[in-house]
Amino acid sequence: MLLRVEPVEIAGEIRPGDDLGKILAEAAEPEDGDVIAVAHTVVSKAEGALVDLSEVEPSDLARRLAERLGKDPRVMEVILREAEGIVKVGRDVIITEVRGGIVCANSGVDESNAPPGHVVTLPEDPDRSADRIRERIRELTGADVGVVITDTQGRAFREGVVGVAVGASGIPVLADRRGDRDLYGRELQVTVVAVGDLIASAAELVMGQADEGTPAAVFRGLKDKLKRFEGPERASALVRDPERDLFR
Amino acid sequence: MLLRVEPVEIAGEIRPGDDLGKILAEAAEPEDGDVIAVAHTVVSKAEGALVDLSEVEPSDLARRLAERLGKDPRVMEVILREAEGIVKVGRDVIITEVRGGIVCANSGVDESNAPPGHVVTLPEDPDRSADRIRERIRELTGADVGVVITDTQGRAFREGVVGVAVGASGIPVLADRRGDRDLYGRELQVTVVAVGDLIASAAELVMGQADEGTPAAVFRGLKDKLKRFEGPERASALVRDPERDLFR
Repeated sequence: MLLRVEPVEIAGEIRPGDDLGKILAEAAEPEDGDVIAVAHTVVSKAEGALVDLSEVEPSDLARRLAERLGKDPRVMEVILREAEGIVKVGRDVIITEVRGGIVCANSGVDESNAPPGHVVTLPEDPDRSADRIRERIRELTGADVGVVITDTQGRAFREGVVGVAVGASGIPVLADRRGDRDLYGRELQVTVVAVGDLIASAAELVMGQADEGTPAAVFRGLKDKLKRFEGPERASALVRDPERDLFR
Repeated sequence: MLLRVEPVEIAGEIRPGDDLGKILAEAAEPEDGDVIAVAHTVVSKAEGALVDLSEVEPSDLARRLAERLGKDPRVMEVILREAEGIVKVGRDVIITEVRGGIVCANSGVDESNAPPGHVVTLPEDPDRSADRIRERIRELTGADVGVVITDTQGRAFREGVVGVAVGASGIPVLADRRGDRDLYGRELQVTVVAVGDLIASAAELVMGQADEGTPAAVFRGLKDKLKRFEGPERASALVRDPERDLFR
């Protein structure tokens, strides 16, 4: 199969209350079977998941951690409020668990691309956000698309950030290949592929960050090609149960 | 930019001594600026990085770990021989550090897609392997391509495997975006993108595993599009220094 991935240009800034499904439908012109990946920051902004730092009073803990990590104490306070647990505190980064069990740096609180004096948080329920965008696109265009809401995350053991799926609708995010055979007819060892994260990483190759105005990407016809895979369609399925995690 | 990713079909099995650069040149018909991603297993097989298990005598440690993890003691012996350090031992997996500092499950020793009675190991020096493939393709076709040698790896905190670059030549594997600005003209927070791993993950979306005969993918024209990025061109640069790693 040939994979075609195109950047999706969104002119201007997304503001709270904007109809992101409509904006994506107009910009991407999706057809049945396409998959749209969109950066969580624009989803969060459309949903009003923004915090005005002038209204944040940092706790003592936030002040101490902010000093240690060289951060704004008000931003650290938002990071702590978003966290359900603290996984690690390093010299210049705090790794937390947020709602839904996602483990990420700074609770996913983003200072880039937020309006001045604000930070962007993760959407309240990214899988539901993906559902809403998908439903709105179907309503407007008739097209049944897949939707992946992306974030960029660092990893243990490796440098640099990659794309991950924090929300999904209409595509399998984990592909279970159990029962598939290798070249010699034996069952495969590696059986579960994180398709949602592969899509998010592929999207990062074409999505402009920052001032480039392309916070989304469209994969033409991908959804049909994923039909060979079966698996859960919620990005929350990509989060490992802490009891099964060697690094917790 | 539009991204086009095509699977590359390789008929039959790769054997030690096969001219993989030539095979890829004929199958992918690469042009200047293309990037070829190829699964490390076929690189290893062409280079003879195979171990005949009938010649392996497991140590006592290999036997004990094999029993604990439910593995063949001879496979465990190969895993330990390939390891420069043991990072974690779980209930059903051993995470090790191999040459070049790559951290992975089972030292990258692969039982799938190996000839009967054998296992496949990682290439001796995957960056050098990528150089050789790139040079051979240039020799045969005149095309200056990028090469990424891929593996699939599990992650801390998340389910499923994704693609990672274990070898690279001719493309930046880490893109430093320091100095880039966000929508509001501020410097970006997240500054280093693991482009090599993004390519490996995008390739996984089209590469067949197992019996599908498509262990490689070609990204048309990607190399030129990566010119906006600057960074190291060796996949070894993707390996985090243990002293900078929160999870070591």
